[in-house]
This record gives sequence, structure tokens and C-alpha cells, in this order.
Amino acid sequence: MDLRTGLPVVGMVGAGQLARMTHQAAIPLGLSLRLLAEHADDGAALVAHDVVVGAPDDADAVSAFAAGCDVVTFDHEHVPTEVLRRLVAEGRTVLPGPDSLTHAQDKLVMRRRLSAAGVPCPRWAPVSTPADIEAFAAEVGWPVVLKAARGGYDGKGVWVLDSAEQAGEPLASGTPLLVEQRVRLRRELAAVVARSPFGQAAAWPVVQTVQLDGICVEVIAPAPDLAEETAVAAQELALKIAGDLEVAGVLAVELFETDDGLAVNELAMRPHNSAHWTIEGSRTSQFEQHLRAVLDYPLGDTSPTAPVTVMANLLGGETGGTGIDERVHHLFAADPAIKIHLYGKQIRPGRKIGHVTALGDDVDTTRRRATSAVDYLRTGQWPGEEPTS
Amino acid sequence: MDLRTGLPVVGMVGAGQLARMTHQAAIPLGLSLRLLAEHADDGAALVAHDVVVGAPDDADAVSAFAAGCDVVTFDHEHVPTEVLRRLVAEGRTVLPGPDSLTHAQDKLVMRRRLSAAGVPCPRWAPVSTPADIEAFAAEVGWPVVLKAARGGYDGKGVWVLDSAEQAGEPLASGTPLLVEQRVRLRRELAAVVARSPFGQAAAWPVVQTVQLDGICVEVIAPAPDLAEETAVAAQELALKIAGDLEVAGVLAVELFETDDGLAVNELAMRPHNSAHWTIEGSRTSQFEQHLRAVLDYPLGDTSPTAPVTVMANLLGGETGGTGIDERVHHLFAADPAIKIHLYGKQIRPGRKIGHVTALGDDVDTTRRRATSAVDYLRTGQWPGEEPTS
Repeated sequence: MDLRTGLPVVGMVGAGQLARMTHQAAIPLGLSLRLLAEHADDGAALVAHDVVVGAPDDADAVSAFAAGCDVVTFDHEHVPTEVLRRLVAEGRTVLPGPDSLTHAQDKLVMRRRLSAAGVPCPRWAPVSTPADIEAFAAEVGWPVVLKAARGGYDGKGVWVLDSAEQAGEPLASGTPLLVEQRVRLRRELAAVVARSPFGQAAAWPVVQTVQLDGICVEVIAPAPDLAEETAVAAQELALKIAGDLEVAGVLAVELFETDDGLAVNELAMRPHNSAHWTIEGSRTSQFEQHLRAVLDYPLGDTSPTAPVTVMANLLGGETGGTGIDERVHHLFAADPAIKIHLYGKQIRPGRKIGHVTALGDDVDTTRRRATSAVDYLRTGQWPGEEPTS
Repeated sequence: MDLRTGLPVVGMVGAGQLARMTHQAAIPLGLSLRLLAEHADDGAALVAHDVVVGAPDDADAVSAFAAGCDVVTFDHEHVPTEVLRRLVAEGRTVLPGPDSLTHAQDKLVMRRRLSAAGVPCPRWAPVSTPADIEAFAAEVGWPVVLKAARGGYDGKGVWVLDSAEQAGEPLASGTPLLVEQRVRLRRELAAVVARSPFGQAAAWPVVQTVQLDGICVEVIAPAPDLAEETAVAAQELALKIAGDLEVAGVLAVELFETDDGLAVNELAMRPHNSAHWTIEGSRTSQFEQHLRAVLDYPLGDTSPTAPVTVMANLLGGETGGTGIDERVHHLFAADPAIKIHLYGKQIRPGRKIGHVTALGDDVDTTRRRATSAVDYLRTGQWPGEEPTS
């Protein structure tokens, strides 16, 4: 408790863009997020007051950080379970708790639990030898998808295999692996919900996520032309998982939409890229909602603020030519209604350095505004424009 | 320029709630506001990373603070003109500039300039003796309103006089004074606009402000039942003043609506209480717009996000009984769509410690939601509820 304001202290492990946007949402709630930053120049550490530098797998550092917090939550999944268990043993409130969070940290744990609960998933199997992979492929057909159980993100730790020989390196690394059927999908969706320890839950509209090389590049809210019963099924699935796993905070359920229905791809138990659109596109953003949930406050209204919201991720481009500041200037001149979010990161090609959000009345126009905005910020050129030398 | 991000450094003198909310708006723009805070525990200093402690009238402190900033702007009007002129002489970009800002700092300067430009104002005169006041009242009738030219706010520095004898203390103080006709008003309005150094300007809808004992307690956007031609006239007036005075940043023009038309009450050249509603109620908040304006970025879309937005100020109540955290909990349970903004201040009776915003479709319901929310946060009781012992 902050004795001066009479309000709780929320600690967040990790200081990337999710913590940065959570800090932004904490300010109106009268809070000041306490951050455990791996590096002093992490995006959130640049904008928050109360920053401790320490590694998320350093049990003593995490423990000392947590001591002054009313609740500890996360901007990533990289805190080892034993570190979390020690916090709980020390009497800290950790949300989501270690038993929940493990399902977002370990794909084998997640698949076992969801399959046991009857949640639709792609066919899968744990593997540790080429023979395991061949046996699985013999049943479901090539190609198959090999995944590291822990530590993958944005397409890392995922390999599409046409033969078991291609799995040599991951198998040799000794990391726990699973293999999954390559699902023939129509598209990818995400159902994002929040749940409080009290058990209250709230869902945002189901969105479509557009991936390129395993990286989410665009999110369309709500998912265009999604059958009402599929939307409801996706929300119910996410709410069921949140309840079954006793999630506290935001839960993002990445889904495949297939001819045979929905299948769960991944879980994240924190604010998630697929709900960045909620900052402008919903009456309650996922960042405010995550804070409300982990504080066990009643959850906020998730109504949309526009018929269509499109979020596009901004990847770093080649620098040189005009700088980002000049590009922001030109973008604002071209589209006074576009909203930008820059994460305070140094620009490197392909690195996620921000996102933009466009609100509108129709999907095509709104998508075009969002994607041309990020293209322009990345390249300094409008679509169809000749490069300047 | 922040060499790491390629983005400008904005310095703000003052670290109260306006700076706190401006910092919140700076985060998505990739910026981290640099603050000159009078006290280390000022509301904005608690949530920002880059905080320098120093007094706004300490020329050396302000000068040192400004040295690393691409632009210096303000959360209050208390920086002396000579301190600002020194910054300009040292080559700093100060926005709004000293020649503009003096009109928001000194009511005599403001009245002279606006009257000369033909802007409608209440009748007024500079005064320094009881005889001056009597002569003015002989023309316009008692009561008259005596104002300190500098330093007043929230009803401070303003005296309603039934006779010149009541002016003894202010006259004896030696502070420059003016006297104004007490306008018979229908209600108070505010026209808030932003203007960039490039000369671009943008206006939000004209709002009604509701005052109690000289303190703004409620803002209704747009002003209910305001004649279209009056709304346009108010916006044009504010845009004309912004242009004439070469304002850069947000300009709030407080207006009296009278049977004879509009009259200017006060000017503020910074984000202003009468536009806090824009955080949720407009596509571009006044805080984002102020930053865009002082950075000379093109201005953002000022469209409303709902038919009606009501902002109510939260004043500190008697503490004891339930704490603020518990009250927030109950308020969120009662109204999941209400938005709260707490300023990180210690609660003292009558002190502005936050505000709430309600969006809705009709004025009466939306006002009731906003005002009962702040009443509840202040007292721990719902309207009509018996006090608990």
C-alpha cells in the first residue's frame, strides 16, 4: 500500500512495451507501476519512476523487488516457476499465479491440460527422437510443426518440417519438444478476456490476427464476417480456459479457424499484441483491465468505440533518409485521426518498435489506413511512391 | 533530441496533474516528458522517469533544466516573464512564448489586449484606490468583481465587492488589481483550441462548465442546448485569440454566456480542466494535442467519441471510514463504464485530487453518473444513503 495515496502498489516483472503501456494505464488509476527491468533502457523503464534493474530469473532480485508490492504481475512469461513459487511462499500475491502461468510458459503442459479438458487443439504429441516425429507424421501427414515447449515467441522456437531430418538441431539441443499437426486454416483469430481472482470475467470482441513469417502484423477488430456462433464459441472457450486455469489478469487465446471449427494455438496470460487495439477501440483497454483484474477491482466495460478498429505493428526499417520524427510529422499530416504508439526502442530492421491504430466504419478503408501508416513509418515512402535517392 | 529513439525531448515546467496527464499522453508518442518539479512528490513526478527538482522562479534552475530540451512548455503560469526571456535569449524553444504567455499570466495585460482587438469582455478598469473602484461602480453598478492581475486561480485572488471598503486588504497589498462588471450570466462556457507554431489550429466542441464557490466542479461536452451560431462564435473567438496572441499549444478560453452574447472571462495557455473530458471523449485528448502543437506536429482529429461526455472533479473529503481504494472498488462495481483519474495527491478536504469521466447518450443520465461517482469517492456514500456510524 502506498501510504501517501492509500492505493496499492503493483509490481510488474519485465519492462518492455507491455509494461510501458500498462504504466500508461496505471497513471489514471492513481498508481505508479513498480518495474523489474532487465536493462535500464527498456521501453517501460524510460517512462516510469519506480524502476528496479534485475533479471527475471534471479530469485533473490525478484524476491527483493516483490517485497514492497501488493501484487506482482508480468509483462512476459520468462520468470521460472520455482522463482514464482518462492514468492508465493514468502506471502506475496502473484497474479496470474504459478499454477496458472505454467500453461502459458510450457506448451506441453498447456496441450496436456487443454486436451484433458476437451478443449479443441490441433493433434499433438511430445517428441524427443526422429522416430517420434515420423510416427506422428505417419498418422497426420507431412508437413508437421515442431515446437519448443518453452521460450518461443514471434515464430522463434517453431519449425515446419517436411521430414524428421530437418529436426536435427532442436532435437540435439535437449529442449523439451512437441509436434503438432499442421492445421489447414482459414485464418487466425484471437479471443481475449480478463478474469479477476473474485471470478468476474469480461471478453472483448473476437479479432482476426494477420501473421507474416510467424509475426503478427495486423489485428482487425472485430474479426470481419465472423459467424455470430463462432464468435460466441471463441469467447466461451476463452472464458472456460480462464476459469479452468484460474487465470487472474488478461488471457489471450490464439485460435485457428478451420473448416472443422476452432482450435487453440497458444495462450498468453498478460496483455497481448492481439488486444493493443483496445487502447482506442474499447471503452476499457486491456492494460487498464489487466490492472483491474490483478487488483481484484470489478472489471471495466469492453464495448467498442467504433465499428472497426485495425491495429498494425510497426517493424523497424532501414534507417537513413528521413528520421522517425519527420515521418511521424508527415503521417499526422496525411491522417489526423491515426494513433501511433512508439515503444522507446532503438530502431533495428524487423524489430517491433511500435504500432498504429485506426478506427473507422469499414474494414477495407480502415485496414488500408493502418497498414499504409506503418509502411510509411518504416520506409519513409507512401505505397506506390518512388524511392527518393 | 533523444539520440537513442530519434525523437524530441519535451520539457514541462511544473509537475502537477496536468503534467501527469501530459506524461501519460507522451508515452505513446515515444517520448518521456522531462519535468521540472517543485517537489519530488508532485503528482507527475511520481510517475515520470526524468524529473528535476527546482522552483519555477529560479532562473538558473529553469535554465539548466531547459538546456537538454528541444522544447519547453508549462503545466502552470507561474514562471516569471524574465525567466522565460532568458531561456529564449539562450536559444531555447519556449512554447507558448513569453509574449503569448503573459496574457494568461496577467489579467490586466489580457484585458488591454483583448479589448483593443475588439474581443467581447466584461467592462473593466485598472484600480489602485477605493476611489477608482467607486468611480467604476458608479458607472456599472454594484456589486463589482475585484481581481488580482496575477497569481489567482480556483476563486483565489477574486473578490465580489458591495462597497469599496471591502477592498481594503487587496488594495493595501500593493498587488496590481483590476475591477470588472459583475456580468449577469446564463452560464459559463469554455472554448478550447490548440494551435501550432506553423499556424494550424483545431477546436474541440464548446463545453459548459459548472462552478461552485469559484471552483469548476463539472464540465458537460458539448454544452447542452447551445445555439449552433453561439457555438461557432465561441470557437471562432478562441481561434482568433489563439492566432492574434500567437499561442502555441492548448488555449482555453473561459466564457460567460449572457443575454447580450459571449464575454471572455479568463485565458489559460496549457491543458485545462475544462478539457479533461477529451481523454476519453475525443479522438485526440488535449494532452496529446498540446504535445503535438508544441512539437509543431500536425494536430489530431478532435471528433467526439460519444454524444455526451461529462467530467466531474473529485475533491478530497473527510478521510476515515472506507479508504479510497475500497471506494474505487465499489464505484467500479456500480458503474463498469465510469473512468477515474487520480492525481497521486494526498487527500485533503476540498483539494482537487482527481476527476471522473462518463460517456453517454443523454445529458441527465450522464451527469448523474459522473456527479454521483465523485460524491461517492469523496464521501463513501451513495446519494440518499444514510451515513454509517
